[in-house]
Amino acid sequence: MKKLINNPDDVVKESLQGLAAAHGDLVKVHFEPNYVVRVDAPVKGKVGVLSGGGSGHEPMHGGFVGKGMLDGACPGPVFSSPTPDQMEAATKAIDGGAGVLHIVKNYTGDVMNFEMAAEAAAADKDVKVEAVVIDDDVAVKDSLYTAGRRGVGTTVIAEKLCGAAADAGYDLQKVADVCRKTNENGRSMGMALTSCTVPSAGKPTFEISDDEMEIGIGIHGEPGRERMKLKTAKEITEMMAEAVLSDLPFKNGDKTIAMVNGMGGTPLIELYLLYNEFAEICKKKGITIERNLVGNYITSLEMAGFSITLVRTDDEFLKLWDAPVLTPGLRWGV
Amino acid sequence: MKKLINNPDDVVKESLQGLAAAHGDLVKVHFEPNYVVRVDAPVKGKVGVLSGGGSGHEPMHGGFVGKGMLDGACPGPVFSSPTPDQMEAATKAIDGGAGVLHIVKNYTGDVMNFEMAAEAAAADKDVKVEAVVIDDDVAVKDSLYTAGRRGVGTTVIAEKLCGAAADAGYDLQKVADVCRKTNENGRSMGMALTSCTVPSAGKPTFEISDDEMEIGIGIHGEPGRERMKLKTAKEITEMMAEAVLSDLPFKNGDKTIAMVNGMGGTPLIELYLLYNEFAEICKKKGITIERNLVGNYITSLEMAGFSITLVRTDDEFLKLWDAPVLTPGLRWGV
Repeated sequence: MKKLINNPDDVVKESLQGLAAAHGDLVKVHFEPNYVVRVDAPVKGKVGVLSGGGSGHEPMHGGFVGKGMLDGACPGPVFSSPTPDQMEAATKAIDGGAGVLHIVKNYTGDVMNFEMAAEAAAADKDVKVEAVVIDDDVAVKDSLYTAGRRGVGTTVIAEKLCGAAADAGYDLQKVADVCRKTNENGRSMGMALTSCTVPSAGKPTFEISDDEMEIGIGIHGEPGRERMKLKTAKEITEMMAEAVLSDLPFKNGDKTIAMVNGMGGTPLIELYLLYNEFAEICKKKGITIERNLVGNYITSLEMAGFSITLVRTDDEFLKLWDAPVLTPGLRWGV
Repeated sequence: MKKLINNPDDVVKESLQGLAAAHGDLVKVHFEPNYVVRVDAPVKGKVGVLSGGGSGHEPMHGGFVGKGMLDGACPGPVFSSPTPDQMEAATKAIDGGAGVLHIVKNYTGDVMNFEMAAEAAAADKDVKVEAVVIDDDVAVKDSLYTAGRRGVGTTVIAEKLCGAAADAGYDLQKVADVCRKTNENGRSMGMALTSCTVPSAGKPTFEISDDEMEIGIGIHGEPGRERMKLKTAKEITEMMAEAVLSDLPFKNGDKTIAMVNGMGGTPLIELYLLYNEFAEICKKKGITIERNLVGNYITSLEMAGFSITLVRTDDEFLKLWDAPVLTPGLRWGV
């Protein structure tokens, strides 16, 4: 296993220490239980926005904590759900009296643990919690770790929009509405050229030949739709765009936010090339990309591959998108 | 070769098309000759700041074009110098009448071609050009493609500081002074776990065993100081920090800007873990990291590995660092 780590057991803790050391002006990191909160949490009178999940997807979620995005994030072990006590502690730490939204990616462990945490926080401190489950991955229905569709890239968009909504003074119900609407209008699909290696496992999650790729891969290396021979960027993007666009379906005249996301091991020169292909396809179909992200936002350790996320948007969403954000992983307008 | 591309010959062009499609609000891309300029270039009365070099190091340099950083960038073929005519055209395109600074990484082709471009721009349009060569890599003296030390991570810091200085109204000589001072106070070193593959070559630049790493690697996969067995993140960071810190040397009481940079294939969870190690070392030696970057800023395609850059700073530099920047790859304060 070729990794720049010390002990596999310490990867998450030591990486969080680095996050704290690098961004102490933006976030505070709490250890045992592990959670990240914005440096000025709780913000009185504002809805708190919390997400979390297994580590290994950085910058998501800890890198999206800060003004205008998440108030808190709970990092579990690599590719494993955080525990209810992490989530409960983080929920209490970010509650400014207006309640807390849980943004939950649709993995069985995450969903169950966030539910338990919400109940515990309500019982102990009377924190009002709303939870919205993100299930935007069109690749497969039911998968390893998931009943129904998996939650992937739309989570990043939802965290930005909900963070802005909370900042703008939306109440808990309305911030949750923004999250639900983002999920309803968001679709994603990913693919991989190579596997990733979970540090504690020490070997690749799956085997793949030098001339093969996996279309519809999950962010933990879960099987996708199809294993096939490597194709050109154009052909791959066409396949993935077709799956994403036909699912909602996106239509001529739609305005959207698009993300071309690297899985961790794919260089930016390729991601921009892929964005070029995807933007061309959208243009031909009369779908306008109003805003975009190109880069590594929801990763799978060192996996080579990428995913496409498209969210149908409206003027309210664009305004929330453009609002200032100041986090380690995403920042503008401040 | 596992890459998300179409034809190896079209990678640079198609990636630039993607950059233009994604960031048309920030940059304009000119093709044949290829160069990237900020969308409002030339900015009248402001010193223009230009850099360039082989592609494959994204976001550097094209991703650093925009308000507060570079006015222009010349992307060559992957790992090959851009031509003098690209540089000349870009120099003229960004000259707002106050002259143009060329920030040149120390590779023989880059240095020679930027010199020819400067002469041509002066002869044709009377553009005043100053050039500063960055040679911050402590790993080796003389290398493939280089006489003297190679130019690496300090380039990113210099581009930010010089862009801010130009924005603040510094004249050409003073912007060039900022660049020279950045280079004099900046030191870097890199390492790799894996090779990269140049698309047109179709095979890895070098072979390396599953249990080996290369310390002091160049950003094109040029040989470094030593091939050795893989060590822990702590041991690797100590070796690299020792080489960087002892070279200037950095001393107790120094204030610095630090960058822990991914080579393209290293996930963020590892980069933060490495930053944690490096920050600890600096702290023990009484060296203060005033500002930092952790992420992929000067890459080597999909190479797994990282580099450390440390620049000794003062109040003027910190003020320039904190000034607003709005580019595809780096943005804050605007």
